[in-house]
Amino acid sequence: MRLSQYFLPILKENPKEAEIASHRLMLRAGMIRQQSAGIYSWLPLGKKVLDKVCAIIREEQNRAGALEIWMPTIQSADLWRESGRYDDYGKEMLRIADRQERDMLYGPTNEEMVTDIFRSYVRSYRDLPLNLYHIQWKFRDEIRPRFGVMRSREFLMKDGYSFDLDYEGARAAYNRVFVSYLRTFTRAGLKAIPMRADTGPIGGDLSHEFIILADTGESAVFCDRQYLDMPVPGADVDFTDDAAMADIVAQWTTPYAATEEMHDEAEWENVKAGDRLAARGIEVGHIFHFGDKYSAPMGARVTGPDGKEHTVSMGSYGIGPSRLVAAAIEASHDENGIIWPKAIAPFDLGIINMKPGDEACDKLAKRVYTQAGNAGFDCLLDDSSERAGSKFATMDLIGLPTQIIIGPRGAAAGEVEIKDRKSGARETLSVEAALNRIMA
Amino acid sequence: MRLSQYFLPILKENPKEAEIASHRLMLRAGMIRQQSAGIYSWLPLGKKVLDKVCAIIREEQNRAGALEIWMPTIQSADLWRESGRYDDYGKEMLRIADRQERDMLYGPTNEEMVTDIFRSYVRSYRDLPLNLYHIQWKFRDEIRPRFGVMRSREFLMKDGYSFDLDYEGARAAYNRVFVSYLRTFTRAGLKAIPMRADTGPIGGDLSHEFIILADTGESAVFCDRQYLDMPVPGADVDFTDDAAMADIVAQWTTPYAATEEMHDEAEWENVKAGDRLAARGIEVGHIFHFGDKYSAPMGARVTGPDGKEHTVSMGSYGIGPSRLVAAAIEASHDENGIIWPKAIAPFDLGIINMKPGDEACDKLAKRVYTQAGNAGFDCLLDDSSERAGSKFATMDLIGLPTQIIIGPRGAAAGEVEIKDRKSGARETLSVEAALNRIMA
Repeated sequence: MRLSQYFLPILKENPKEAEIASHRLMLRAGMIRQQSAGIYSWLPLGKKVLDKVCAIIREEQNRAGALEIWMPTIQSADLWRESGRYDDYGKEMLRIADRQERDMLYGPTNEEMVTDIFRSYVRSYRDLPLNLYHIQWKFRDEIRPRFGVMRSREFLMKDGYSFDLDYEGARAAYNRVFVSYLRTFTRAGLKAIPMRADTGPIGGDLSHEFIILADTGESAVFCDRQYLDMPVPGADVDFTDDAAMADIVAQWTTPYAATEEMHDEAEWENVKAGDRLAARGIEVGHIFHFGDKYSAPMGARVTGPDGKEHTVSMGSYGIGPSRLVAAAIEASHDENGIIWPKAIAPFDLGIINMKPGDEACDKLAKRVYTQAGNAGFDCLLDDSSERAGSKFATMDLIGLPTQIIIGPRGAAAGEVEIKDRKSGARETLSVEAALNRIMA
Repeated sequence: MRLSQYFLPILKENPKEAEIASHRLMLRAGMIRQQSAGIYSWLPLGKKVLDKVCAIIREEQNRAGALEIWMPTIQSADLWRESGRYDDYGKEMLRIADRQERDMLYGPTNEEMVTDIFRSYVRSYRDLPLNLYHIQWKFRDEIRPRFGVMRSREFLMKDGYSFDLDYEGARAAYNRVFVSYLRTFTRAGLKAIPMRADTGPIGGDLSHEFIILADTGESAVFCDRQYLDMPVPGADVDFTDDAAMADIVAQWTTPYAATEEMHDEAEWENVKAGDRLAARGIEVGHIFHFGDKYSAPMGARVTGPDGKEHTVSMGSYGIGPSRLVAAAIEASHDENGIIWPKAIAPFDLGIINMKPGDEACDKLAKRVYTQAGNAGFDCLLDDSSERAGSKFATMDLIGLPTQIIIGPRGAAAGEVEIKDRKSGARETLSVEAALNRIMA
């Protein structure tokens, strides 16, 4: 993409309303725009990052055996009356009357609807296990939305739901998602630590939050340093092997890790002094086993191998892709802007043509853009007439992992400068060497 | 995907509520499920088709130079008061009060919001042309939703918006979208004919509907048969060449074509008698040029090359991907079920193992599944224990373009049956020949 044909509305000033780094940087980098309190548009650069995050989530959900569906945003209140949550949910639920005066709502989550889908079609244990997920907009009418897309009212959520014959099956389903979440966050370039969590209004007796560490995190977390070096399963991990899944989960839940609400000072004292890591964290995923909390009142039952009816055992599993984008920035930025992990960077490579109109510069910029593009790299070419300092600042702000800088002197000599955004290291190389470096 | 691990809730009976073929077949094939009046969940098979349609739309939008964003579903009523449409829109607009008693609405379309984005950032003609699109859920509170996802209340829409300095630029933008729509529908396996259209409540002075012909279409259409053989531009068409775009549009708008509302008997009489095609059609796309209808009241202005302020000239462009899925079925089905165009089929290949448990059948089924999969074909393997007739009926119902049938007798001889869903032709071939045929 050529910047002259792109829509990248950079803000020069720090927006006053932004209290945290990710909110400030997403606004400044032209990734998002607030439309109403807690409601955002995703502009082209932000949309690309969000798509990359969703693609990773989707691939790992599918790998773990979950099936993608797409449930609507608007739900009938009657479903929520069946589970008893319609009255419980309070003002965070956006309640709507349609033109026929039927009570509807904008889904804040989908346990009821997916249970309704399940009970309409599934009759036999032979159709289990089943895990259905979707990636869909949700609305929670927070009284004080803030921190940009970190705590917005309309937000994207991947929510998945598992159905099993009994606790043992549900536990195996829980473990599969647990492992898929480890892989998902790692692939997105984030170190997420699973921590025992309170089950809150979803209910249930087993729950973990996946927390990434960031100095600017919303809450205090306490964990064993062992987590920082613990290996995450590779793409060849066998999700159909319940025992292997259980082992990985055991490994990832044995050392101490807890959010503030679940923190236990006595257990904490047992962690080796040098391994105690008290930090700040951001929740990016949350998984729950809640058994028959919804299946019992809503009558989601199957015939078991014993010929009897069994109420299915369920779990639900959420990742907020829009929040994850902000969390990735909180975990990786500096005073000049965002530093994207490669896997979720909006472009792989930023090319700065320092002097558009100069024949040698234009030719070299085009060559690098075309060759890197043909090799499968998604490039952003700054061909604008802004001054040099402004171009450098923009490229640092939007945080692409690698920059290629092409100026008149270098172009004459067939040389470019290559800059690593994270380390800031700059090196002058021949065009060939630079292209080889990128494609290595 | 193995059917035993999939969620494909086939209905044996015709659902009573379904009045048209696509609605009936989508329910029977387990593609969608109604959650409330006019509000549907997309089940795994339906979601796959919808994804393929959206991917084609996206590729062709990007090719034509449009940029993808993602605007929220919930909008502030204040924006719609600026354009004057808040009061005009009537009961089809889903109006919502949030917990602060602010007037909000579920967007039925996004002219106001995208104009608001534009005016916040764009100041100069140098940043034009600009075309921003998104694929997002919309809600129109139809008094009598029906025909499944063909006329639902919550539906997916690709809506794009162009901004130009003047009419000439806007007309060029309109032409680019016109050509990209021709390519989009053709790639989806549909023959869409652009017809002059009424501009309706969006307003404006230039508009075309893209109509596909189907016996079960919602409205009468009249066109010259020439359209049926008119060539659609290839992927190498140059969207930056305004003159070439104008030529293609001229070619595609010269022969007579009109929907019932715009039909002109006098002009119709001028079409050669043998070329008059009076048929039924389904609208799958609609494009509008409306000039300053929104930019004037909302103050979307840029500085022109003359140093003066100009109100930008706008157009909007819509395709309904959810409706397009239904329309594709209306245009292509038989008494046994759906017949998907290859480009939007949920799977490329259906493999029927007639006797799971039989060693030779299992081995051969696995071989075909693996080899076709490795060659990049997305396969659905029916490994269920249903009886033969039911397996054949299901495979025909879901309409995959090609079926491979593996039975015990053939398996012993290293032979399979290959069936073309559209023609119904069946042929017995060696496994090698069948695989070669598929991959040809």
